[in-house]
Amino acid sequence: MAETKLSTHTLDALYLRDKNLVDEVIGQMTFTDAMFYHIMGVAPTPGQRAILDAVLVTLMEHGFTPSAITARMTYLSAPEAMQSAVAAGLLNVASQFIGTMENAAKILAEIATNPDGTDAACLHVVHRHLDQGQHMPGFGHHLHRPDDPRTPKLFAIAMAHDDIKKQPIEMMKQLGSTVDQLYGKHLTINATGATAAVLMGAGIPVGIMRGFAVISRAAGLVAHIMEEQSSPTGRHIWDLVDKSIPYTGKALETPNNQT
Amino acid sequence: MAETKLSTHTLDALYLRDKNLVDEVIGQMTFTDAMFYHIMGVAPTPGQRAILDAVLVTLMEHGFTPSAITARMTYLSAPEAMQSAVAAGLLNVASQFIGTMENAAKILAEIATNPDGTDAACLHVVHRHLDQGQHMPGFGHHLHRPDDPRTPKLFAIAMAHDDIKKQPIEMMKQLGSTVDQLYGKHLTINATGATAAVLMGAGIPVGIMRGFAVISRAAGLVAHIMEEQSSPTGRHIWDLVDKSIPYTGKALETPNNQT
Amino acid sequence: MAETKLSTHTLDALYLRDKNLVDEVIGQMTFTDAMFYHIMGVAPTPGQRAILDAVLVTLMEHGFTPSAITARMTYLSAPEAMQSAVAAGLLNVASQFIGTMENAAKILAEIATNPDGTDAACLHVVHRHLDQGQHMPGFGHHLHRPDDPRTPKLFAIAMAHDDIKKQPIEMMKQLGSTVDQLYGKHLTINATGATAAVLMGAGIPVGIMRGFAVISRAAGLVAHIMEEQSSPTGRHIWDLVDKSIPYTGKALETPNNQT
Amino acid sequence: MAETKLSTHTLDALYLRDKNLVDEVIGQMTFTDAMFYHIMGVAPTPGQRAILDAVLVTLMEHGFTPSAITARMTYLSAPEAMQSAVAAGLLNVASQFIGTMENAAKILAEIATNPDGTDAACLHVVHRHLDQGQHMPGFGHHLHRPDDPRTPKLFAIAMAHDDIKKQPIEMMKQLGSTVDQLYGKHLTINATGATAAVLMGAGIPVGIMRGFAVISRAAGLVAHIMEEQSSPTGRHIWDLVDKSIPYTGKALETPNNQT
Repeated sequence: MAETKLSTHTLDALYLRDKNLVDEVIGQMTFTDAMFYHIMGVAPTPGQRAILDAVLVTLMEHGFTPSAITARMTYLSAPEAMQSAVAAGLLNVASQFIGTMENAAKILAEIATNPDGTDAACLHVVHRHLDQGQHMPGFGHHLHRPDDPRTPKLFAIAMAHDDIKKQPIEMMKQLGSTVDQLYGKHLTINATGATAAVLMGAGIPVGIMRGFAVISRAAGLVAHIMEEQSSPTGRHIWDLVDKSIPYTGKALETPNNQT
Repeated sequence: MAETKLSTHTLDALYLRDKNLVDEVIGQMTFTDAMFYHIMGVAPTPGQRAILDAVLVTLMEHGFTPSAITARMTYLSAPEAMQSAVAAGLLNVASQFIGTMENAAKILAEIATNPDGTDAACLHVVHRHLDQGQHMPGFGHHLHRPDDPRTPKLFAIAMAHDDIKKQPIEMMKQLGSTVDQLYGKHLTINATGATAAVLMGAGIPVGIMRGFAVISRAAGLVAHIMEEQSSPTGRHIWDLVDKSIPYTGKALETPNNQT
Repeated sequence: MAETKLSTHTLDALYLRDKNLVDEVIGQMTFTDAMFYHIMGVAPTPGQRAILDAVLVTLMEHGFTPSAITARMTYLSAPEAMQSAVAAGLLNVASQFIGTMENAAKILAEIATNPDGTDAACLHVVHRHLDQGQHMPGFGHHLHRPDDPRTPKLFAIAMAHDDIKKQPIEMMKQLGSTVDQLYGKHLTINATGATAAVLMGAGIPVGIMRGFAVISRAAGLVAHIMEEQSSPTGRHIWDLVDKSIPYTGKALETPNNQT
Repeated sequence: MAETKLSTHTLDALYLRDKNLVDEVIGQMTFTDAMFYHIMGVAPTPGQRAILDAVLVTLMEHGFTPSAITARMTYLSAPEAMQSAVAAGLLNVASQFIGTMENAAKILAEIATNPDGTDAACLHVVHRHLDQGQHMPGFGHHLHRPDDPRTPKLFAIAMAHDDIKKQPIEMMKQLGSTVDQLYGKHLTINATGATAAVLMGAGIPVGIMRGFAVISRAAGLVAHIMEEQSSPTGRHIWDLVDKSIPYTGKALETPNNQT
């Protein structure tokens, strides 16, 4: 039976789940609190609020990534439809970037449920990735060495709150030790791995984690569009790309095509 | 010259605009504060923060609207790509719903700059809409009568903060009086009209207002997807719609098609 | 090294791959031929042209599916941005519908490369799906019984052309026999399965098959938008869905919410 | 009353509008014919078929435009969701590129209905654009001078078919003469302007013209994705853009940020 618990209304009131929107939400809850309540069905604890804010501000902006380039290109083509630029950019929140967060979280879940204990589970996971030549999701960073500065900050916020489960953070740290040992070099726990651990500690299911990345990135993309309005980069990007990719087909070698 | 002020990084630090992400943003700023800072270039004042939170929680959820139906349909088709469901839903944040907020804001801007004063400007605007048979953006509600309960709440938050300009709210109220007088009946200032006024009071340019609606709705759509995961409606909607729209072509009247 | 073979231009000519657009493409090639040439890098043979046309017209329209509902909802919200309606609809061309075509093609590729021969390979594949309780992609239809009428037509077109490989069709038929035998009942090879076989016979790589479905569906969605312009269904769908999904939360049970 | 004429089915047959899909469409109609029939409700005449094919192949590919860059970026982020790359690219088929085709068509419609005749109407339209400092949609090209080579080819196809109305082409040519005269220099009728004229000659309503551009571009974007699979440009584009846009904020000028 199809049903919803998300909202309803009467002639003179609106409800967000079980709360009166006007009396209990507007002016009473921050956006972070209201989205947690709306998505999760319960208001956040102090720790959950702190983790969610920390994650949302961490994922918001990453420079001229494919997501931002996509949004700016689309805004150049469709300035009358800002939502198209954001939507196109959000289609980049997928396997290659945010997917690693989900994969890191799945590994933590696998470790947590391994009856042989954390030590054996970490060894098992890292050996499997090494054997299959796979990248360990949540580890390594092309720029930040030896360590991603966001990770200890996210972990510290989690550790400071009694209502956040510590096990995922501890497992991630132990996994990091195992990674360093078996890879024979230090690989930082990156922000993606740290995010997976703290969201898991806050009780966010793996299956909805990507949603928070999408919300956060929506805000980041709106900032790109706002900047594009006053300091456009679209034409520059278009020209730059167009000129940098040579045509290597045979059209101009064909005699009758040389006009 | 293409340039950006949105972010940069060094080997051991990341920056959101001028702030060190780890030291000054994560754990220090809420998502609302960080998005305002990121989009607008300055941290919000207390009133701006209050208005932005109020608007974001107000716009987040509106039930089974085209936006939500779109997101749920797309999630049914592509459960492996949650971002597609959100992106498809956000493509509905356009002229017919959020566009009225922008149009209401443009009317307020027109009134503010009319050299003949607010009284004359309000009369001029309402007469023009009446003459052209156009709906007054920001006025009327099909359900909430006589008044939209969100409007006084949004106005009260704006009025409670010294750092919010009161002129847009006052203009909107006076416009409401003119509307009632010239239409010969009471039309409520609806949430869309109130949102336009308070965002303008908070100094948000009309050209970026839709962006905040997009961010807010992204959160609402994630809630719909989360509910869809545990209490799906997708098949129900599909069946319901498919069965309710009869085929009225001539295929089955053609003799050789009657098999 | 980034490069492209897709197009170039001179001061007085444009090229689609190696062909002069004005002299050799416009007025000389149909859309089907030009898209095959553009995507595949060679002009189609007569059989490839016939298969591509057959597949494109088969996949174009399937009634009020999630894809069409999404496009119509989005058009209701954004009539000024028809491309948004098509784009939102196309986001539904994903795992649950077109993904089964790709999965069927992968099974055919698995059978083709099994050194134990087709008989053993078919048995192996069907047993594996039975053991894992998985649906056999490309088999069964909720409506068309005992057989999907599109399948023999698609197969007949493939069989009528010498330049189409027959092996995938033969493998699919043999797989069908094995399915019927091991499932103990007749499951039709559906249009999705047939499409996978004939596209493989035409030399289309599995990795781009979804692309042809996307092109075909784009045309189908434009037809839905065209119909929506003269005979709208959007408001009807919205009302229908909104009324059919009851709110089952506790808002109205809370004493202070009963206004 | 919501209804549809697009498709229906029985237990053993499917229908595209009034035609039996298996007996009358698959193997009988090309994709061009079937899409025209599906969208317009009648099968194309020979001239309509020729114009539609010509327009579809003309609009399919334009190099590394914002649309193509968007699709390639999104494919880099989401290789598991090819439809996302196409959808994101199609969101670029909007006001700045295809919108000019619609605007050119609207001008032709305005000229056709001006009771003062074509001469006066052309003068009126061009003067209005000159007075308002607006670009004449459908005129001028940054590369192809003095003339866009696609235009005479599209016009020639239209002129060769008795079933295509010649008036829009003649009006466009006369408009071109007026443009040259009043601007004091030759501006070519570009492919966009020519497309508007020939589609109007073929009886395609202005309100659906963008749809054909969307279908055509979908095919072009699939070609970009196919090339991206074997000869990727995504990382190159990302790196190129990221390095070319300097950060000009003040983060690194702040003493405590210099780490």
